[in-house]
Amino acid sequence: MGQIRNILFVMYDQLRHDYLSCAGHPTMKTPNFDRLAAMGVRFSRAYVQSPVCGASRMSFYTGRYVHSHGAAWNNFPLKVGEATLGDHLRRLGVESWLVGKTHMRADAEGMARLGLSPDSVIGARVADCGFDVWIRDDGLVAEGPEGFYDSKRSPYNEWLRQQGYEGHNPWHSNANSGIDENGDLASGWLLKNAAEPANIREEDSETPWLTRQAMAFIEGHKGGAPWLCHLSYIKPHWPYIVPAPWHDLYGPDDVVPPVRDMAERDDPHPVFNAFMNNQPGQAFSRDDVRLSVIPAYMGLVAQCDDQFGKLLDYLQASGRMDDTMIVLTSDHGDYLGDHWMGEKDLFHDPSVRIPLIVYDPRPEADRTRGTVCDALVEAIDLAPTFVEAMGGVPPAHVLEGRSLAPFLHGEPVTGWREAVFSEYDYSAMALAGNLGLGPNEARLFMVFDGRYKFIHAEGGFRPMLFDLETDPQELVDLGKLPGHEAEIERLERMLFDWARRPAQRTAISHDEILGMRGKSRRYGIIIGAVDPDELAPDLRAKISGRAGRDYRG
Amino acid sequence: MGQIRNILFVMYDQLRHDYLSCAGHPTMKTPNFDRLAAMGVRFSRAYVQSPVCGASRMSFYTGRYVHSHGAAWNNFPLKVGEATLGDHLRRLGVESWLVGKTHMRADAEGMARLGLSPDSVIGARVADCGFDVWIRDDGLVAEGPEGFYDSKRSPYNEWLRQQGYEGHNPWHSNANSGIDENGDLASGWLLKNAAEPANIREEDSETPWLTRQAMAFIEGHKGGAPWLCHLSYIKPHWPYIVPAPWHDLYGPDDVVPPVRDMAERDDPHPVFNAFMNNQPGQAFSRDDVRLSVIPAYMGLVAQCDDQFGKLLDYLQASGRMDDTMIVLTSDHGDYLGDHWMGEKDLFHDPSVRIPLIVYDPRPEADRTRGTVCDALVEAIDLAPTFVEAMGGVPPAHVLEGRSLAPFLHGEPVTGWREAVFSEYDYSAMALAGNLGLGPNEARLFMVFDGRYKFIHAEGGFRPMLFDLETDPQELVDLGKLPGHEAEIERLERMLFDWARRPAQRTAISHDEILGMRGKSRRYGIIIGAVDPDELAPDLRAKISGRAGRDYRG
Repeated sequence: MGQIRNILFVMYDQLRHDYLSCAGHPTMKTPNFDRLAAMGVRFSRAYVQSPVCGASRMSFYTGRYVHSHGAAWNNFPLKVGEATLGDHLRRLGVESWLVGKTHMRADAEGMARLGLSPDSVIGARVADCGFDVWIRDDGLVAEGPEGFYDSKRSPYNEWLRQQGYEGHNPWHSNANSGIDENGDLASGWLLKNAAEPANIREEDSETPWLTRQAMAFIEGHKGGAPWLCHLSYIKPHWPYIVPAPWHDLYGPDDVVPPVRDMAERDDPHPVFNAFMNNQPGQAFSRDDVRLSVIPAYMGLVAQCDDQFGKLLDYLQASGRMDDTMIVLTSDHGDYLGDHWMGEKDLFHDPSVRIPLIVYDPRPEADRTRGTVCDALVEAIDLAPTFVEAMGGVPPAHVLEGRSLAPFLHGEPVTGWREAVFSEYDYSAMALAGNLGLGPNEARLFMVFDGRYKFIHAEGGFRPMLFDLETDPQELVDLGKLPGHEAEIERLERMLFDWARRPAQRTAISHDEILGMRGKSRRYGIIIGAVDPDELAPDLRAKISGRAGRDYRG
Repeated sequence: MGQIRNILFVMYDQLRHDYLSCAGHPTMKTPNFDRLAAMGVRFSRAYVQSPVCGASRMSFYTGRYVHSHGAAWNNFPLKVGEATLGDHLRRLGVESWLVGKTHMRADAEGMARLGLSPDSVIGARVADCGFDVWIRDDGLVAEGPEGFYDSKRSPYNEWLRQQGYEGHNPWHSNANSGIDENGDLASGWLLKNAAEPANIREEDSETPWLTRQAMAFIEGHKGGAPWLCHLSYIKPHWPYIVPAPWHDLYGPDDVVPPVRDMAERDDPHPVFNAFMNNQPGQAFSRDDVRLSVIPAYMGLVAQCDDQFGKLLDYLQASGRMDDTMIVLTSDHGDYLGDHWMGEKDLFHDPSVRIPLIVYDPRPEADRTRGTVCDALVEAIDLAPTFVEAMGGVPPAHVLEGRSLAPFLHGEPVTGWREAVFSEYDYSAMALAGNLGLGPNEARLFMVFDGRYKFIHAEGGFRPMLFDLETDPQELVDLGKLPGHEAEIERLERMLFDWARRPAQRTAISHDEILGMRGKSRRYGIIIGAVDPDELAPDLRAKISGRAGRDYRG
């Protein structure tokens, strides 16, 4: 064990907090994730700032709430000027590299306004969330009648073609499709095909390919500057399809029952109702879909775990375990049919709670290895953790989270946060229109204080409320029942306090502000003095003297 | 009358809303301000977003609340990336020029991070609040034992030296000082000297100098691109001293009695108490100070009015009244001893309410000329008013105010705002330390709904509340009395709703958001479909086809 020279920041996409064996899943086996947990601290109550890829990631990368950075949904650009992890670390002499996905859309208008070209070093970083790009692939080479979802090039797709995979989009036709009995594509986009093996060599599928890219990055940076490497996988995110042997490692018998109750459908909150009744909700409420899709999802997780093991082996063999902080997390979860829901979007634990394991090579962390920490942790805590790990002082006027170092080092922590906050902006979803909501009204805020989970909905709806002490599965929405006014008022007050935070006062530090107090007179600004004897002698001298020529009237 | 080709945006500094004769002042005469009011609309209930120069101006120039732009006090930098009036107008082919003061501090760290040099065209605009600079002079060439308050050059001071004024700082020793009986400087910084005439030729004082600069700008831009000219005076801001003949145009008999009551000092709100007891509050609570300073203030206002008359004469003679929208306003007021206060800072009307007169040359405005509008108006309404005047559509995802055009054109207005909001961040003031407040706690929020003025104070204090219907002079703080819980709760709820607004979602427009609804499938993102027959035929075709070579297993 040693000191921290590098940070390997591994993110999976849509990996549920409870699909790790170390988190207690009864059938899912993740021996390699568990290896990391045995060497580090597993944070059991970690929450994302938004249960959707783009918004969540922008919070990870900026260390700021969605309400602060404004990139509130997929493909809502991150506005130019927002500082990122890369900016904070470069100041410390640490490079920040991207290997994989960010789901970041650049603020093209803002960049043009400031004359920032994406071809310049600075412009490229601004366009890529502050990272230097080793490889960027957002992993969604979807194509519909109106074109590709993602107009950026896909290095993975290009590589597949180099390997001889045919067609213009082997990402779809090989990596994310099987073959049906007629020899036609069985697209992974269709849930009925989830149990098929993808028509690709296992080692050519996305997760192994990206793992090799990460190892090449690390190899290529031996002896160079300290780095943070954001290794960011698309999996186990949909399309739910995985190559052999992972496609049938798990079967229907391994699928845990859904966490749901018919009572949830009885007088539900209108927003919850709309999500339950959208197509993913309807599909994942079917048992046949769950029993076919969840084994594929577990296979994808197993492949992620397998590749993570290869990565750990490499890190151990190359000595990187001695000087590298390793973080394993996800940008959000997946309902998988719990609460009659598919996808993510809302704030039940399967969606908003994430796995988070932090391995710290420093000797100070020895006493916590293999332990579980149940403090309320937010995704935005990683940015200050990284700054601190690299020897910096997290800038509290910019970064809204707090360093996890005290937890990693088993130090006493006082005054930790009382609640975590998360947000969801569904203003660009069709169901917002169905609910009659304008662009500013289709927004949700969650406050979770460790017991009560409170959800405020814009648009004039009542709040939702869950008591996880009496109802750990979040099946009873107390927001529709009388008798909880006091809790609602208390949690609303927490949201109110949070919403007033000075999140945009980012261009002046707290120390600078404190340093200004009482100083204006020292620079000659004299307000409210009547007579010269009210001034310090040196100041009095500054405004005194002979008058010179008389210009008066 | 004609169409709008130019905008002359005139701002005074610290000009009270009620020191205009057209606003009903009993002794102050402002015939030229009144001339504009007779040709335009006077908004009688206009409020600034913060009663302090820097923060207020950043709201005028960005069209956004202080809580949104973050430049919450003087010399708190405006963070790089914030779009300004200049950005919005340039998009319409309109140039934006500065003649005078902005009190803007550039975000040097943010500019360096983005590689923006203040020597470049774009960098210079970012550093000067989005304006191109005809002349910038912030008008505070104060010097104390630790140096100058403002490290930028002062074109006005340089010009004074060219005119033969001696010494290294004629801004202080001539423009803002008189001569005492011994031939020594009688500094305008000291309130005891307010009645002295400044030791400068009247035409060389700041207000006439800047007026000539504005005329030179307008002359120099004949036949060029349409422009907005921000003519931004330092006066009637302190130092309270004015050259002859203005220094004795008004005397103690012209001073109106202070609006104050001994009851205000009885169990006052702790923050109000701290401000009353700071040096400006103590000084302006002395009648001798008021009777000497207020005539000087009135003289400064009279000189501003006189110069405004010269400007109007020039505009009329040159034909500019036919194609130029003219706005007259101020960045905040001045307590002048009302409520036992000096300076501005808090939210009584003398401080937070501003004069606002808008002259619109368009024929559509003929029906409102000379009228008074009592709608609740905010400083941030000017930016969208200007965009609209120049033929643009105000971007509602960036600009938080609303165009005043309907009021100018006498059109019916529905759904206007229910309240105005203002903020004050005193975290850099010594009195915050005296109150034991950290950098995030020394902040105030005002909500005024046209009747009740509610002030929320961070730091654990009770709120303040005034009922302007029963107490138009704001002498009774209902926040310390029982029986007003319902009003407080209602106004708190308005502040809560306001604080949650999506103010940072500035990189995507409402139309773009609405245009995304229901579109992801058209780009191939298929979530929740089980069978191909759930897809539109053209989408189904996109994901179908022959599988090609078999790579499975």
